[in-house]
Parts: sequence; C-alpha cells; structure tokens
Amino acid sequence: MPTPIDLANLPHTIEMETGDGSLAVSYLDQRLLPYEQVIVRTDDWRAIVDAVKALAVRGAPAIGLAGAGALALRAQQAAFEGLSGDALARAMETAAEEIADARPTAVNLRWAVERALGRARELAAQGVVSAEVAIGLGELVREMQREDEVANRAMGDNGAALIAPGSRILTHCNAGSLATYFYGTALGVVYSAAAQGKVERVYADETRPVGQGARLTAWELARAGVPVTLICDNMAASLMAQGKVDAVLVGADRIARNGDVANKIGTYGVAVLARGHGVPFYVVAPTSTIDASMADGSQIVIEQRDPAEVLPRPIEGVDVWNPAFDVTPARYITKIVTESGVFAPEELAATL
Amino acid sequence: MPTPIDLANLPHTIEMETGDGSLAVSYLDQRLLPYEQVIVRTDDWRAIVDAVKALAVRGAPAIGLAGAGALALRAQQAAFEGLSGDALARAMETAAEEIADARPTAVNLRWAVERALGRARELAAQGVVSAEVAIGLGELVREMQREDEVANRAMGDNGAALIAPGSRILTHCNAGSLATYFYGTALGVVYSAAAQGKVERVYADETRPVGQGARLTAWELARAGVPVTLICDNMAASLMAQGKVDAVLVGADRIARNGDVANKIGTYGVAVLARGHGVPFYVVAPTSTIDASMADGSQIVIEQRDPAEVLPRPIEGVDVWNPAFDVTPARYITKIVTESGVFAPEELAATL
Repeated sequence: MPTPIDLANLPHTIEMETGDGSLAVSYLDQRLLPYEQVIVRTDDWRAIVDAVKALAVRGAPAIGLAGAGALALRAQQAAFEGLSGDALARAMETAAEEIADARPTAVNLRWAVERALGRARELAAQGVVSAEVAIGLGELVREMQREDEVANRAMGDNGAALIAPGSRILTHCNAGSLATYFYGTALGVVYSAAAQGKVERVYADETRPVGQGARLTAWELARAGVPVTLICDNMAASLMAQGKVDAVLVGADRIARNGDVANKIGTYGVAVLARGHGVPFYVVAPTSTIDASMADGSQIVIEQRDPAEVLPRPIEGVDVWNPAFDVTPARYITKIVTESGVFAPEELAATL
Repeated sequence: MPTPIDLANLPHTIEMETGDGSLAVSYLDQRLLPYEQVIVRTDDWRAIVDAVKALAVRGAPAIGLAGAGALALRAQQAAFEGLSGDALARAMETAAEEIADARPTAVNLRWAVERALGRARELAAQGVVSAEVAIGLGELVREMQREDEVANRAMGDNGAALIAPGSRILTHCNAGSLATYFYGTALGVVYSAAAQGKVERVYADETRPVGQGARLTAWELARAGVPVTLICDNMAASLMAQGKVDAVLVGADRIARNGDVANKIGTYGVAVLARGHGVPFYVVAPTSTIDASMADGSQIVIEQRDPAEVLPRPIEGVDVWNPAFDVTPARYITKIVTESGVFAPEELAATL
C-alpha cells in the first residue's frame, strides 16, 4: 500500500566546501522554497551570520553547521589578513561570540561554534598558521556534517520502532533534511518508518508565521514520496478529534536537563492537544540539543522576532506578539528520541 | 487605566437600503479590509449570493441579513419581470433555496432566508403585487437589522457581567461588528465590558487561512480604542501558559440542542487549551444560532473550502485540508451567552 520513498530526492541544505584549496559555505536559501531553489555560495563569514538571522538557513542542526562553517571562513579571512598569535585568537573568539549570538534559542548553534572554536585553539596551540587553522576547521565541519547524518539515521531507526504500521503522523515546523545536514530528525523518523512501510500519511502544520511546515516540510515529504497533507496550525485539534492522528513527531531547539523542550512556536499547543486526545507526542533530536546547564525550560531564552513576520503591513493601533519558540514541559512528552536511543524525558539527564 | 472606547468608529458591514423607492443592499467588502474600505451597492440578488460565497460578506448574523436582503432583491426583480401568483411563488422558493445553500454551516443564513420567505408567502397570500412583496421584505430586513443590534447589545451586557476587572481576553475569528449588523456578539461583550472599564487587552488569533482575526478583529478593536495584540493561532497556548488569558470569548455559527457549538476552524483547539489551562471559555451568539433540529454537533455539516485559501500556489504532491469550521463539544464550554441571558450549555435546550 505505501508508496516507496525516494531519498535521492531529499534536499541538502548546507555544505562546507573544501575542494579547491579554499573554503566556502554553500546553502539553499530556504526563504525562497519551495518555488525557487537558489543555492548561495559564499566565503564571507558575516554573510552566513546574516543568512542565519534572516532564516535563509534554519533548523537547529543546520544552523549549528552554518555557525561552525562561518568560524572556518573567519579563520580563512584571518589568513588573508595575515593574523597570527594573539590577534588570530582574538579574532576567532570575537567572531565565535557574534556567530553564536545570531539566534539565541537553539543550543546547537553555540554548541557547534564552541566545538569549532575549541578545535581552532588546539590547532593554534600546535603553532600552525591561520591558513592551516582554516583548513582544519573546514575538515571539522565536514566531519560534523557526516556525524549529523549518521545521528539522524540512527534517530530515524530508533524512532521508527515507535511507529505502528498504518500510522498517520502529525508534525510541526520542519525538522527534516532541510533542518539538518541530511535526512532530518523528526522527519528522519518518518523516512525510516516509511521505508518500513509504516507511514500512511503525514499531516504538516503550516507553522505560522514563517511557514516552515507549508514551504519546507510538505515540499520535502512530497519530493521523497511520502503522502502529505498540509493543514493550518488551528486545524490540528480537529484532526485529532476525528481520530486521524496516531502520533506527533517534532524536533527540538534546546532540551533542558529535566526534559523540557524548546521548539518552534506552536509545539507546546500541539503537545497539550495530543495529551487531551491520547495521542503520543515524540520529540526527536540529537544529544547535542540537550543543554546540561539548564535545569528546566524556564531558563531557556525565547527569541522574539519582527512583528512584520506576522503582519507584513501594520494596522494602526494593533500590537503584535511574535515569539519564535515555546517550551513544552516534560510531562507532555511521551518519549525523546536521540541517536543513542529512546528515553522518557526524565531519563534524559542520566544519558549525559 | 483603560482607554475610553469609541463606538462611533465601529464599522457597519451591511445595510438594506430602501430609501429611494427601490431596494439595494450595500456591503463592506471584507476581503479588502483593513487596507481598503470599499462599499459595494447592488440590486442584484445573485451578486449577494456570490459575495457570501466569496467571504466578501461573512459572519453568521451578517450573512443571515445578506441572505434575507438577497431575497428582497429577488422580489424586486420579480416585479421588474412582471411575475405574480404561482410564478412569483416559484421564483421566491427557488431563490431562497439557492441563497440558503450559499454556505452550509451557519444556521443564521437559512433561518433568516426562511423568515423572509415566510413573510413573502404571507404578503402573497394577502394578494399584494410583487413590488409590494419586495417593499415588505425590505422593511423586514431593516427590522431584522434593528433586532440584531438590540440582541447584540443585550448579549454584550449579559456577557460583560462574566468579565472581571483587568481581564485579558482571547478571541478567535471575528464575531464583531463586522460579523453582525452592528456591535458584534463576542466582541459585543468586549465592548460592553470595556465600557465598564474591565478590559485590559484583547488577544486576537489571526485565524488562518482567511485571517479574520488579523484583518477584521484586530482592526475593529483598534478603531474602537480597545488595546489589542495580534497573535498567530499557534501562540494561544503559550499565552495561556504564561497566565496572560483570563477568558476566551468566541461567536458561533450553529449551536446544537445539547450545546455543541460549530464555529470557525480552530475554535475547538482553543477550547481544549482553555480547559487545560483553567481559563473560562464563553460562546456568545443570538438564540437564532440555536438549531433545535440538531440533537448534537455530530450532525452539523462542516463546509470544506478551496485549498488555495491555505496554499495559494500549489506544491506538487502536497494535499491540503481546509475545513472552514469545527465543532466544540458542550463539555468544553463554560457558558453560552445569548440575548436572553447566560446559560450552561445543557440549559440551552430549555430556553427554546
């Protein structure tokens, strides 16, 4: 009954290019999807920061790779500038801070940038010149890309075990191949379960105000051959009441030690509705999304974005609230799926 | 602390014009709001049917008035055509059916059209000519307009008694002056409560896919001087979790005998979230919205609309689900406010 899925059609969203002796990052400008597929190639680290802020590159794992890539480009620029020693170190630290600050909520960005900065420090401690630091960081980012795909495929297999044959799955935002190096987190579970013939249909919340569900998730799933129906965010409750949702799968931008999860605005509402309708609610994310420094979700900084995302043309006297994320308390989460396995939220801390 | 509200700025959405010896209906084309305020005047009954189908006129009470107005225009056309007797009766019955079928979910449309058709039959039974039937129906529609405003103001006063000073109110879709002849149902309660100094702020769900909350409710409230914040539908849960919603007020398109309520898609989800957060959920509607023929909400026909409302430019392989309404079971509803008083949903049948 299920259509065979076609992973060859899954999009890549970001790539660290190291081929011709110089570094560049290429990315698919997600603001233009699905109607235009424009790949931007740049060796300007600040252009990557801008792309992350503007959501041209988005998705917690993908912006982590973008951030590490930006730091590699900064090292390359330092080589052009002839920086070394303390000047190189200062330039790298300053850039790392600026990159990590591009978006506050997803932990993966800071995690990846700090990992790259750590590698830069190691290389500098070995006394290599800045051009070699750049090459080393480029190699690290490619390694992180491979790790990301391996982790995603492991999450996919771990999560697919939770999915019953014939499942209708609801997802919110885009935690797909477009949010990662390849394959996706929540959608990785969909791809693995679909490959096992278990997925009847995915319902994609359009995910206002930016529309990641409509423009990215629905498009990505359709390309891969997964049956997909787009709904407005406010239709999810009706779908559940009609018994048409067997499981909810979402990604995560940051997970606190107690299992509270920050994810795209609207995730919390879906979790409350899932609980009210007896539908299991699964969060799928790499262990790098767990922020051991945060005891619970109340400490997570929620990014507030431009009101124009909600209301492009202002209406006189009308205020707009536009938080980019919300926090779903652990008690609403059935299981958290990582590359290491499937955990109850309260078990997560023990895996660190 | 609260700003004084200014009802003189509240928009009128529809008007039966009988002034110059011929009938016309004028309406504010709500598809263009808030950026353009275009009033369309027509004596073509089918133009009114098209305006209702296209959501140029919307809101359960307003489309009832539009439907009755369209039947008055049909009688006027019959006069031009020289119809009388059986031919007039047939023309009126056929038109009434076509008008009432324009939208299936709101009961007010069929209720108002049947009321106008009943008046037409009475007049015909008195042997008057079709021109006089038209004049009689024009007078009836103006009477219904006045009744609507009187009922709305009564609902406003009845509902305002439920609102505590300093309240932050969440609403979904538009049940305001723009949805009625004047003043509104759910927003009528807001205006009455605001006049009593009780409303700190209204949060308006944008109400995808048509955006009645963003384009109509937020605009209407701001014009009246009520502090209003627009949110995406998927943000309501976060707002409730932060303790920023003291009450939910919504309208209704049809209420079954047991108190189940059909209203704009997304209403049910808000009701489930309100219950989960201990927030009272009030439905405000005239008694004409109660459909005594329906035992419960499962019998209510839910209008399915064009997928292009959700996704104007299709994506290959992506299906779209676009129900215009959902049904909120009575158990999620704290009180139903009508012009007759405030009732528990299960008390409603006894008021019929």
